[in-house]
Amino acid sequence: MQHFESDYLEGAHPLIMERLSATNMEKTPGYTVDVYCDEARRKICKACGCPDAEVHFLVGGTQTNSTVIDALLRPYEGVVAAQTGHINQHEAGAIEAGGHKVLPIPHEEGKINAASLRSYLEGFFADEAYTHMVNPGMVYLSHPTEYGTLYTRTELEDIAAVCHDYKLPLFLDGARLGYGLAASNTDITLETIASTCDVFYIGGTKVGALFGEAVVFPRPGIVKQFVSIAKQHGALLAKGRLLGIQFSTLFTDGLYLKISRHAILMAERLRKTLEEKGYEFFIRPQTNQLFIVLPAEKAEKLGREVGFSVWEKHNDGRTVIRLATSWATKEEDIDTLIGLL
Amino acid sequence: MQHFESDYLEGAHPLIMERLSATNMEKTPGYTVDVYCDEARRKICKACGCPDAEVHFLVGGTQTNSTVIDALLRPYEGVVAAQTGHINQHEAGAIEAGGHKVLPIPHEEGKINAASLRSYLEGFFADEAYTHMVNPGMVYLSHPTEYGTLYTRTELEDIAAVCHDYKLPLFLDGARLGYGLAASNTDITLETIASTCDVFYIGGTKVGALFGEAVVFPRPGIVKQFVSIAKQHGALLAKGRLLGIQFSTLFTDGLYLKISRHAILMAERLRKTLEEKGYEFFIRPQTNQLFIVLPAEKAEKLGREVGFSVWEKHNDGRTVIRLATSWATKEEDIDTLIGLL
Amino acid sequence: MQHFESDYLEGAHPLIMERLSATNMEKTPGYTVDVYCDEARRKICKACGCPDAEVHFLVGGTQTNSTVIDALLRPYEGVVAAQTGHINQHEAGAIEAGGHKVLPIPHEEGKINAASLRSYLEGFFADEAYTHMVNPGMVYLSHPTEYGTLYTRTELEDIAAVCHDYKLPLFLDGARLGYGLAASNTDITLETIASTCDVFYIGGTKVGALFGEAVVFPRPGIVKQFVSIAKQHGALLAKGRLLGIQFSTLFTDGLYLKISRHAILMAERLRKTLEEKGYEFFIRPQTNQLFIVLPAEKAEKLGREVGFSVWEKHNDGRTVIRLATSWATKEEDIDTLIGLL
Amino acid sequence: MQHFESDYLEGAHPLIMERLSATNMEKTPGYTVDVYCDEARRKICKACGCPDAEVHFLVGGTQTNSTVIDALLRPYEGVVAAQTGHINQHEAGAIEAGGHKVLPIPHEEGKINAASLRSYLEGFFADEAYTHMVNPGMVYLSHPTEYGTLYTRTELEDIAAVCHDYKLPLFLDGARLGYGLAASNTDITLETIASTCDVFYIGGTKVGALFGEAVVFPRPGIVKQFVSIAKQHGALLAKGRLLGIQFSTLFTDGLYLKISRHAILMAERLRKTLEEKGYEFFIRPQTNQLFIVLPAEKAEKLGREVGFSVWEKHNDGRTVIRLATSWATKEEDIDTLIGLL
Repeated sequence: MQHFESDYLEGAHPLIMERLSATNMEKTPGYTVDVYCDEARRKICKACGCPDAEVHFLVGGTQTNSTVIDALLRPYEGVVAAQTGHINQHEAGAIEAGGHKVLPIPHEEGKINAASLRSYLEGFFADEAYTHMVNPGMVYLSHPTEYGTLYTRTELEDIAAVCHDYKLPLFLDGARLGYGLAASNTDITLETIASTCDVFYIGGTKVGALFGEAVVFPRPGIVKQFVSIAKQHGALLAKGRLLGIQFSTLFTDGLYLKISRHAILMAERLRKTLEEKGYEFFIRPQTNQLFIVLPAEKAEKLGREVGFSVWEKHNDGRTVIRLATSWATKEEDIDTLIGLL
Repeated sequence: MQHFESDYLEGAHPLIMERLSATNMEKTPGYTVDVYCDEARRKICKACGCPDAEVHFLVGGTQTNSTVIDALLRPYEGVVAAQTGHINQHEAGAIEAGGHKVLPIPHEEGKINAASLRSYLEGFFADEAYTHMVNPGMVYLSHPTEYGTLYTRTELEDIAAVCHDYKLPLFLDGARLGYGLAASNTDITLETIASTCDVFYIGGTKVGALFGEAVVFPRPGIVKQFVSIAKQHGALLAKGRLLGIQFSTLFTDGLYLKISRHAILMAERLRKTLEEKGYEFFIRPQTNQLFIVLPAEKAEKLGREVGFSVWEKHNDGRTVIRLATSWATKEEDIDTLIGLL
Repeated sequence: MQHFESDYLEGAHPLIMERLSATNMEKTPGYTVDVYCDEARRKICKACGCPDAEVHFLVGGTQTNSTVIDALLRPYEGVVAAQTGHINQHEAGAIEAGGHKVLPIPHEEGKINAASLRSYLEGFFADEAYTHMVNPGMVYLSHPTEYGTLYTRTELEDIAAVCHDYKLPLFLDGARLGYGLAASNTDITLETIASTCDVFYIGGTKVGALFGEAVVFPRPGIVKQFVSIAKQHGALLAKGRLLGIQFSTLFTDGLYLKISRHAILMAERLRKTLEEKGYEFFIRPQTNQLFIVLPAEKAEKLGREVGFSVWEKHNDGRTVIRLATSWATKEEDIDTLIGLL
Repeated sequence: MQHFESDYLEGAHPLIMERLSATNMEKTPGYTVDVYCDEARRKICKACGCPDAEVHFLVGGTQTNSTVIDALLRPYEGVVAAQTGHINQHEAGAIEAGGHKVLPIPHEEGKINAASLRSYLEGFFADEAYTHMVNPGMVYLSHPTEYGTLYTRTELEDIAAVCHDYKLPLFLDGARLGYGLAASNTDITLETIASTCDVFYIGGTKVGALFGEAVVFPRPGIVKQFVSIAKQHGALLAKGRLLGIQFSTLFTDGLYLKISRHAILMAERLRKTLEEKGYEFFIRPQTNQLFIVLPAEKAEKLGREVGFSVWEKHNDGRTVIRLATSWATKEEDIDTLIGLL
């Protein structure tokens, strides 16, 4: 059985495991105020090109989204997101549990765009009754999106310009950020993101870490006492150094990008084969997630030998499945998979 | 200037004002445990044909919606509603403030239907990841809807049947219930509603009262200590008897239906004229709200002499406006309005 | 049976009922943006000596407390209050429902004091772990307190000075404010309150209105879009003018103070008799609430002829009861009560 | 510098690190539905003597407390706890963020007792106004407490009996459970806890794991879809197997108790020396936490060579400090520390 269900099937990159073991019996203060977290912060600031950035380490994606969103919104404000945004679909109401509505706007392949964002905002504030409605208080996007698609630098800057016009902070969910940065045809770098977004996170869980997300506020001072909001969310890890060690390792010698690039290369080999064999893509693959459309019986047959995610029903009754590569995908597993297709 | 902006422009029906004045200096206990509330409860139970119903009196609609919904849902559950439902649009996030997501489903003229509800529920629970998503925990509908449209008895029963299959309580928002019950072509009565819904409310604010909504649980015991949840929502009126007196008056000698019927007759006169003069309806009028589509300049011109609500932009750029009649609309005001059209 | 259970047993002052009736069939816009609300706002601003104050009209006390507190606090902040504060005891968790902890500090006869407040704040911020705790974000006090006691001007200014040092907004719950302003030995006026507090409310429900509380922000701009937070709390009355008419009447020709003074005079007559007859006061009466300690059997006997509130068990097993006068208390009812004591 | 600040200074027990490394490149499904979690569940069920128990794995203590409490309470209910309970002091409002009040009752050395619990509950429900107050909906205790003290079996059973009488679930916070089970004079075992409590958790973070808390519902079915509530709280770890592997290791060959016992032995050596040298205990030590009272200057001097937690100011102005041993404390570190005392 080959497993391509997701990009978080394995543990951590071996260098991380080594460093966790090597430091295991050291004693450090808790709650991310230790030398390893500071070391990781410095490296991340440098990689983002913003030496004064405020960096926080949280454990998982849903937790990070709800903590950041609660930190930025006032009670009557909501977060604008693609209908398909993770916060709108797969977080069991974590955002609403904080009292905030997700305000869905249309998307294309998981991406929002500046024009529809502006149109929504114009319409909203033109409504005489807008004070009786949930006010847009920030904008959320994911890069790569839940469909593995990518924003271009221009698209991102255009969205940021709209946010700027309406004084809305822009939040980028980077749960799979590595796979976006390492993609073959992207003009977006960490520096791009740091200069256009008000807050974003660098995903560790899906990109080489056991767990962990690094939240970056490129321009500090936006949120007061973020650490208290994280604590309130149960998001402050007691042995915080585990996060520092992991992110420090990922941001040493370009490891984060290097292992992300591997996942992309594996995905591209897979994409090429799928194309050659005439498989139909649900969405043109750009990163490490490949969505293909299969007749139900074919999906079932393939499912006996290959693990994948059943994504949704296509509107013609066929099944959309997702195959995901990761930093840990082995060349020979791709070979085997290709043999089975 | 004629005013047709809404159905809550005036105070209360004169009989209510009289009775409030007549009882003004009486002393009663607070918080809806007084003889007038009990009197109103008995009359409402009788009108609903369910002698054991549990009846609570709250002040306003948004408050009632959020209190009832919080009372019924578990933390990870949301409330299924039409995209256009009041709770999804015009309550400034009151539902989300209670920690719950509104789960919008498609609508036709403000109405959900049994088929799309069932389809949504089937799809939801077929998703392997449903425990990571906000679970549908109840169904909300408004009758009349925000567009003044009405369910038929069959439609309501079909929706109730789906709810029953999925063990979801059905909640009917009756902020304008009188205008629904008094409509010309409806087969829905208070008894119908009481026998199909798990909880609903009889709107007073828009139908003859100064304020007030009577929440009815036809089969008691569904919610424990509803009064505490109301108190927590700031929805328990100190001088609760004001609600009892108003609803007791409304449910004496059929006043509630009688004054509602007047609004319908006024709306029908208006509709007839609008039809004759070739106005285009945005939605076929069924109750006391009339939505018409006007070119922007015409809307502006009319707006100088008639107060109405600007509802939304039509997709062709014209303006959708709403004219509302009410229990208080005077024959001569309709005459004047007709002259201006 | 004589009734002294509370100060909200009757309806409204007759002048209010008259004006509500006189304006009943007028048409006004909803949600407190009408001429009567504006009229009331102007009168309140004048009475407070702050022409630029921001004034909002809400329906009840619990609702007002939770709305104001949610408007002022960030997620990890709580509200400092006397252990006996209404928000800590009798609001069914309305403050916690908004996500905020009530941080109780010691009190004397229901009053907090500047020294213990400062001591609490010093201790709090001296704790290394304070970011892991609920941070004090504002201070709440009630005037008169839940025990009918009053702050002096100096006491209030001292508390405000501490709040100022720690940059904490000071919120005064004036559910019974009239009875405090009209007390015999007070040096606190509306102007005093407006110049020392950041937000307070003028209680209507217990002082002559059918319902209603006027929230005053003496220096506007502290809270953005308060109206949206009120709407979210279900606290925005559709027929908002009912509040405007009531408060405009209460603030015409000094009615608010005049009727409050009546309650004080009634309470003072009652106090004098109780003293003469040797009743033991639980707390020295200052306003319209009289707390006396009775043996259980005596309380029971009195309870057959007089309605009162059972307040708490005294620590010696006797019962503490409360007798309340109000704007509506009749001279002859006091006579009758005195005869029964 | 010697470090005795807390029991979570180091990483994990070496056997855990070994097993994490050994399984690192295996592929498993996420979110705690993997073979390692199942293995850990079976071992925990066995250790608790309840084969049908429902076991969930969460990441940290605050998160676990807020998730369990939200899962058990209705909106208007609160959680009864010692004034000193962790949920009331050091969770930055995580419980209130879920909408629930912590209802503090008196404690002795961090412990609540059956008599004062019963007295509180009797008083609460005797109050006529109890529906206007936050209702006690469950009882929380920690074992060991925040002061390192322990309940006896009888004390725990008596509390459980009160809970049973009032139909309140009893929740035991076992963040340091191992150190309680391994204490020298305790008659409480895992089986005792499983038979008296409705839900409890076995702390991993402070007892040998990198992180992780195992929530046990001895009698399943109390909470529906706990996993969704955990997800909503951001408490569901993507690579859930990390928790399974850790708890499986801790519950193999009695490791959990064995390493806990080591901490107790180290604490007892330390206690003996402190006694001999005449140090004054703030609280008689029972587990791995030792609280001593020091003059400020002595605390400062000691602090130059030994890391400890400053706990609170003693009421005589001296400082209460905490020294904590753990599974990882080395014999020689105790020797060194003893030399410094």
